[in-house]
Amino acid sequence: MPVTTEDKIKAVETYINSFSKGDLEAIVGLYADNATVEDPVGTPIKEGIEAVREFYTGAVGNGAQLELTGTPRCAGDYVAFPFAANINMDGNKAHIEIIDTFRFNRDGQVIEMRAFWGPENFVTG
Amino acid sequence: MPVTTEDKIKAVETYINSFSKGDLEAIVGLYADNATVEDPVGTPIKEGIEAVREFYTGAVGNGAQLELTGTPRCAGDYVAFPFAANINMDGNKAHIEIIDTFRFNRDGQVIEMRAFWGPENFVTG
Repeated sequence: MPVTTEDKIKAVETYINSFSKGDLEAIVGLYADNATVEDPVGTPIKEGIEAVREFYTGAVGNGAQLELTGTPRCAGDYVAFPFAANINMDGNKAHIEIIDTFRFNRDGQVIEMRAFWGPENFVTG
Repeated sequence: MPVTTEDKIKAVETYINSFSKGDLEAIVGLYADNATVEDPVGTPIKEGIEAVREFYTGAVGNGAQLELTGTPRCAGDYVAFPFAANINMDGNKAHIEIIDTFRFNRDGQVIEMRAFWGPENFVTG
């Protein structure tokens, strides 16, 4: 059974909130065993749940606080959502504007994440 | 030579502005001959410039006014951007929140467009 719009939006909310709480297991728990993560798009793809866990261990360790900056858009097997990541780097605050896409499998697990952002979306100060 | 961030952002601005002006040729001119359009994601893909032209002939005919609702995010060969489309339908106003991704070829032309939106992003009144 295809994943519902409600399930997709719930996954996005879990992702945003769990990141902000530093809840690594809740984030990794959204992913399928054979998931891939490409963050940012154009860099080497992390393949499989252990590579995904390793990636988020580092990302959550930055203490980033995420906030949605628009409504999630659901289409086909996907949801796309705009958000900002607020990070403390060496005592300086950084703000990055990002768009992520999640693709879901029929069990409602994320099988592909792609993050769209570049240097121009990065503001320090 | 890969497309630059400046070129990608210029393409997004041309797209948004040309749509609002009803300038079909400026929109189609962004695309490569072998481009594909999937709008929304999960529906049949339009393949080739003639199918792309036919799609936009209908879309521009709706008189939609587009506006960016956040910064374009450039990554790899892609740009992702959040926007709203304001449409008059039979005298009623509709507002749709959308995220598009453009993938560029090495000539700076769009070879793939995917639009993420669903019924939950559609507001009438």
